Amino acid sequence: MAVATARAHGYAAVTEAIVGRLRKIVGERGVFVDEEKLDTYSHDETNAEEYGHMPEVVVLPTTAEQVSAVVKLANETNVPITPRGAGSGLSGGSIPIFGGILLSVEKMNKVIEFDMDNMVIVVEAGMVTNDLATMVQEKGLFFAGYPMSLQTCYIGGNIAENAGGGKAVKYGVTGRYIHGLEVVTPTGEIVWLGGKLAKDVSGYDLKRLLIGSEGTLGIVTKAIVKLIGYPTATSDLLVLFKTPREAIDVVPTIMTRGIVPTSIEFMDQLSVRTSCAYLNESLPYEQAGAMLLIEVDGTSAEQVEQNLIAIGELCEEHGAIEVYVAEDHNTIERIWNVRRNIAEAFKVHSPIQSLEDIVVPMAIIPEVIPHLERLSTTYGMKIPCYGHAGDGNLHATLVKDPEMDMDTWHTNEDLCLRELYRVTRELGGKISGEHGIGIKRKSYLNDVIDPVEMKLMQGIKRAWDPHNIMNPGKIFDLAEMK
Amino acid sequence: MAVATARAHGYAAVTEAIVGRLRKIVGERGVFVDEEKLDTYSHDETNAEEYGHMPEVVVLPTTAEQVSAVVKLANETNVPITPRGAGSGLSGGSIPIFGGILLSVEKMNKVIEFDMDNMVIVVEAGMVTNDLATMVQEKGLFFAGYPMSLQTCYIGGNIAENAGGGKAVKYGVTGRYIHGLEVVTPTGEIVWLGGKLAKDVSGYDLKRLLIGSEGTLGIVTKAIVKLIGYPTATSDLLVLFKTPREAIDVVPTIMTRGIVPTSIEFMDQLSVRTSCAYLNESLPYEQAGAMLLIEVDGTSAEQVEQNLIAIGELCEEHGAIEVYVAEDHNTIERIWNVRRNIAEAFKVHSPIQSLEDIVVPMAIIPEVIPHLERLSTTYGMKIPCYGHAGDGNLHATLVKDPEMDMDTWHTNEDLCLRELYRVTRELGGKISGEHGIGIKRKSYLNDVIDPVEMKLMQGIKRAWDPHNIMNPGKIFDLAEMK
Repeated sequence: MAVATARAHGYAAVTEAIVGRLRKIVGERGVFVDEEKLDTYSHDETNAEEYGHMPEVVVLPTTAEQVSAVVKLANETNVPITPRGAGSGLSGGSIPIFGGILLSVEKMNKVIEFDMDNMVIVVEAGMVTNDLATMVQEKGLFFAGYPMSLQTCYIGGNIAENAGGGKAVKYGVTGRYIHGLEVVTPTGEIVWLGGKLAKDVSGYDLKRLLIGSEGTLGIVTKAIVKLIGYPTATSDLLVLFKTPREAIDVVPTIMTRGIVPTSIEFMDQLSVRTSCAYLNESLPYEQAGAMLLIEVDGTSAEQVEQNLIAIGELCEEHGAIEVYVAEDHNTIERIWNVRRNIAEAFKVHSPIQSLEDIVVPMAIIPEVIPHLERLSTTYGMKIPCYGHAGDGNLHATLVKDPEMDMDTWHTNEDLCLRELYRVTRELGGKISGEHGIGIKRKSYLNDVIDPVEMKLMQGIKRAWDPHNIMNPGKIFDLAEMK
Repeated sequence: MAVATARAHGYAAVTEAIVGRLRKIVGERGVFVDEEKLDTYSHDETNAEEYGHMPEVVVLPTTAEQVSAVVKLANETNVPITPRGAGSGLSGGSIPIFGGILLSVEKMNKVIEFDMDNMVIVVEAGMVTNDLATMVQEKGLFFAGYPMSLQTCYIGGNIAENAGGGKAVKYGVTGRYIHGLEVVTPTGEIVWLGGKLAKDVSGYDLKRLLIGSEGTLGIVTKAIVKLIGYPTATSDLLVLFKTPREAIDVVPTIMTRGIVPTSIEFMDQLSVRTSCAYLNESLPYEQAGAMLLIEVDGTSAEQVEQNLIAIGELCEEHGAIEVYVAEDHNTIERIWNVRRNIAEAFKVHSPIQSLEDIVVPMAIIPEVIPHLERLSTTYGMKIPCYGHAGDGNLHATLVKDPEMDMDTWHTNEDLCLRELYRVTRELGGKISGEHGIGIKRKSYLNDVIDPVEMKLMQGIKRAWDPHNIMNPGKIFDLAEMK
């Protein structure tokens, strides 16, 4: 089946001879062809039934040189190659949709160098982001770019997606903390981009181009990660509002007052309720149509408290029905756990759904809410909403009604997404803030991106990957490329 | 002369007919061919005698549509086109080395929109950076990405070079604050990249690729500039050390203590003395072999003072001979004025020089100093040094001895630069932190950049600019492209 797909798209199948050569490159124990093992690598955190696809072979290299040799073999034999991190992606970016070689960086998880003097850590791409964060925290340092899925995701995947996260309002996303990358190019060459450098204009910023390119322009094998001082004081507010609209309305007000919170997370009632049920947790959600979870950090406890009080007062002036301060670590962790588990809870509660990732100008988010309500009514589906309100990044989630048949669901999901994306574009937004295009959104990208921009993107892809073997069929359709 | 150069490189000359068509596009008053006017546009802040070159025609468009029409005409007629901001560049990036069309954005200097709710300002590329900074400051907002030359430079030029500046240690460089760009591509299409968005992974990050591409990948016509709250408290320390080595040694110590200063500027004695003489200013430089100018800002005066005291104590522990606190605006401005005018002072004092811009890992800068001393002796030239020590970015300046003849100077300058760049590379650094490659450094880029990276850069240039008409001969040699 996978072989047939690959051939239909002009690729060669993975033969016994190719598998043999892969074994020579990475060793016997680094190559799998048995179906059970392959199945593990056939999907990410998107719906496996809808997006999953079996690779023909899985390879687990341990060095950049091995990655290079595998990529060169893929070019030579015209076999597609799909790089993969932890498989925690939300857009199908690591799914081998044309079969071929699945290259997982899971065995490349070493710390190469912890350079305290330069405040950087050099790690391999398969390092679990949380392991990195914990290790540097023990030395009083902070990796501020990590995403919500940090407990499972790899730094390589974070870089491939330019992942966002809970602290992006103040600290920015992953890309800001990546000062250098070792990359294997689509033609199999190994190159270091950037360095342990705070600034660098020696030619084009290829490092930044790689970041967020979803594994289509190369495979990241090592990264130089910038660290900052760990904020010694942190405090959180949980603020309850009657309606989502009221909660969202207050966000630009906070953001323009000069205080920069670490995060302003938004959750509507359905999101909180579903996550609480999943975790057997209780938050005071019954009275609230929506909540904001606002975090402030810093190096002075007094300053953090002053900022928190100022934000709390602002919220009360703008219609908050209750403001809770969560100062002890346990309470903070409990609330964040509810926030972090919303996506997982919805998947358990209703596996057929579409988790979206639109991003709009921060002050425009109040205008998005009525559109979501209208789309919910028009297409007969619940659309709970949560996300990083301080960044204008909302995870509206289209959830299938159990009564709706699958054909209607597919039709309505598509129509609803097209309209959601059109509205997002009209409001000055984009269709993905941190999850990427992958395969989940690629059929919509042409609707929302200027054809000139598409042509420029594809020009780079063609120049760098002449055989179109590096994660093909992601972001762009294969037909446009091959 | 210019015509001959262009023709020798495979370009067409600018004919009367082309000038006529340019007049139709931008109007009679937006086209110049008289020599005196052309001369103004024949150089930037690099040495005009060494790097200057006359354009054949200068055009001053007022809209992106006019820029587009000019670029399309350049493609159609095979005439090179060189975009130009304020001409304050330090690497010859805006010099029309093959003649052709010089396109200055100086008339495109309007504010399109000041969007307080989203904390962005949308401006045209020819806006003077200082005008932008002043305008937003009046509303309590802050453009943190501006460079030292802000009083004359344009925001478009800052973007083209990804300019650094005095506050980059804490706030990063220009690119961090550019959320969107309107660009005219090398084939003349107008496209918006990015938006008023804090994060965006809807395809490749082309905006980041454009930033720092020195006008070789397109002409920026408008920019969406992100603003932050203006820091209400600022204070500066001037710290005197016996030797440059001692001054530089303390920088990593400060940086790893968790306090993030706004800037840590380094000046050796010769730099301070030259600038003071130029400005008729007095600083206590006689006793000091080197100085650090350290700025801390924030929203709380107490916090700023605490941080400043902590830094001052650190400096004293590490051999500072004197620590001066400059708290009033006038004193701060006087000291910064000395720092800002070093480059200009050296130009007046000794016009024949080479202002360098190496960047190394922050903790490595102490290792650079003895190399500079060695090179100074070997090649018989003074090499004063100043720069953004907190970023590892040093403006070592090769200054010609009046006794040295010009041939020896050229030979020694070249040899000295090659060795300086080799050492920089070996120390994990790059040859430009904020000034760019332009024409000044392009013959050295191959020595210090991996051939794989060069090939990737050139692949993009070829894909986007098939006729190689957009600022040709910058970053790469024309021979490699055409």
